[in-house]
Amino acid sequence: MAKVKVAINGYGTIGKRVADAVNLQNDMEVVGISKTRPNFETMLAHEKGYPVYTLTEKADAMKKAGIPVAGTIEDMVANADVVVDCTPGGVGEENKGLYEKAGVKAIWQGGEEHELAGVSFNASANYEEAFGKDFVRVVSCNTTGLCRVIYPLDRQFGVNKVRVTLMRRAADPRDVKKGPINAIVPNPIKLPSHHGPDVKMVMPHINIVSTAVKLPTTLMHVHTVNMELDKECSAEDVRSIFKEQSRVRLIGQGIGSTAEIIELGRDLGRPRNDMWENCVWDDSVTMHEGELYFFQAIHQESIVIPDNVDAIRSMMELEKDGARSIAKTNRAMGI
Amino acid sequence: MAKVKVAINGYGTIGKRVADAVNLQNDMEVVGISKTRPNFETMLAHEKGYPVYTLTEKADAMKKAGIPVAGTIEDMVANADVVVDCTPGGVGEENKGLYEKAGVKAIWQGGEEHELAGVSFNASANYEEAFGKDFVRVVSCNTTGLCRVIYPLDRQFGVNKVRVTLMRRAADPRDVKKGPINAIVPNPIKLPSHHGPDVKMVMPHINIVSTAVKLPTTLMHVHTVNMELDKECSAEDVRSIFKEQSRVRLIGQGIGSTAEIIELGRDLGRPRNDMWENCVWDDSVTMHEGELYFFQAIHQESIVIPDNVDAIRSMMELEKDGARSIAKTNRAMGI
Repeated sequence: MAKVKVAINGYGTIGKRVADAVNLQNDMEVVGISKTRPNFETMLAHEKGYPVYTLTEKADAMKKAGIPVAGTIEDMVANADVVVDCTPGGVGEENKGLYEKAGVKAIWQGGEEHELAGVSFNASANYEEAFGKDFVRVVSCNTTGLCRVIYPLDRQFGVNKVRVTLMRRAADPRDVKKGPINAIVPNPIKLPSHHGPDVKMVMPHINIVSTAVKLPTTLMHVHTVNMELDKECSAEDVRSIFKEQSRVRLIGQGIGSTAEIIELGRDLGRPRNDMWENCVWDDSVTMHEGELYFFQAIHQESIVIPDNVDAIRSMMELEKDGARSIAKTNRAMGI
Repeated sequence: MAKVKVAINGYGTIGKRVADAVNLQNDMEVVGISKTRPNFETMLAHEKGYPVYTLTEKADAMKKAGIPVAGTIEDMVANADVVVDCTPGGVGEENKGLYEKAGVKAIWQGGEEHELAGVSFNASANYEEAFGKDFVRVVSCNTTGLCRVIYPLDRQFGVNKVRVTLMRRAADPRDVKKGPINAIVPNPIKLPSHHGPDVKMVMPHINIVSTAVKLPTTLMHVHTVNMELDKECSAEDVRSIFKEQSRVRLIGQGIGSTAEIIELGRDLGRPRNDMWENCVWDDSVTMHEGELYFFQAIHQESIVIPDNVDAIRSMMELEKDGARSIAKTNRAMGI
């Protein structure tokens, strides 16, 4: 069977990781990546063998920097079965006309509105909803992290209410221009935050309320999760459910912070120290007065990557069963 | 009437602020401070006119540094009606015998166990409980911040349950040796944290559960507070209650982070930019599905200072009515 042709529009934090993850699968291939500036990432993309596309007016700059240009972004899109749009939040929206005109499927990231795609996707929670669809939005890192723990607990015990405090990293490790550097920033100050409603885009019946702050750290987000469950269960029952989830990792063994989780990623030899799984602190899983509490850390740069691969497989009807796609993606990536 | 003689045992972050606050009151005076090392703070204490006491074996070092020594710590204690113990957490416990032997009253800070004093104190919530007592513990900054908002809401509406996420600063601005510098540290990992039980030491009937993390910032703590109230009320009702509290400040006007709160403290001309009041973000006060949510920032270095003054007044029977002591303390400090 011919491999599905995947183009990556935007080659930054998410785009370069999606390209590498797609490249590892045996049922899809990277037919091109797009980048507007000839920087170290563009050069590395070229050296990895990904055809580099750019805007017409940027072609000369690319060539001057020693990076061959395969064509315009329109050329790249025309060549693909599906485009993974990894342009900055809000920009992806402007590309919809381009994809429609070319008759290609497209995946957007969580920075875009739900309405743009019509389907908000998390592989663990609603793989089937994207099946055969033309447009899909893979939800943001925080929403992905929440869906992965809420969905299995809801299936097993029923989730009556979720309250979550999202402690968000201020910037990615590569960002040198963002802050805060020594402050806590409630964001948004008006409560609740949009993250709860975003989970409902994937699982409409979940009752969830969220608050969020931005913090002077670059490594990972951390969530304090509180859940009221319908059926009585123990912390051990919850741990057992989490252990069954291939994209949830229970952590302990002296890992007391996000810094040590990233060190684990480095020691595991993960590309770019990526941690694709939710990291739930085993010791934090607690039932208190009939309510569940736990801490989880979410690697904002990489957690949505496997879900992008699964979204491609569902949209392209390569695999009907979500669990089988997840297993296939995991195997290829080394999760 | 003779002023109450107050000795400050330990002249660090809390001790130096308590000394200055006591010094501003017309019914008490600082008869001495103790310090074990001759550093810039000791020199400034001397220059301010506070008699400096130290350990016998440290007297020579003090004199060499140009700081006259008024006597030993035992001498200081013998001279006082009440000692405010501001030594580091866990150390204060060792001084109890000294205070008992000298027959002086003593106040400890929140770093010590409740059992050491028998009374855990917050001026807004249980001023009367310390009346005439020999030993009192002023609860920690986070617990103080929680008591100040829970108590008035409980009186007005009844508090059925409090859930709070404490986002704690990693270190004080002066600390150069502590971290984290780029990580989020769930602390403790085992849930819930001790802060909830500490509130119960002041208000035993309050049902509260807390989780806590340490963050790479030095300025202030931030709490996400969720409360179930017994009586139905609006966000506006809650705001009205907060507005009536002299030690709760509603903030807005472009203040979006702890950094800007500290800048406000500097612009107000506060000593050491101290923010003695809880800072509640006005826009964050929200009723959602019948539950209250809000953000508040807590200045860890200074929030307990006025409560220490009130504790002295209650223990020394200078004022029977908590509200009047609070008003008197506030007036003298400029709150």
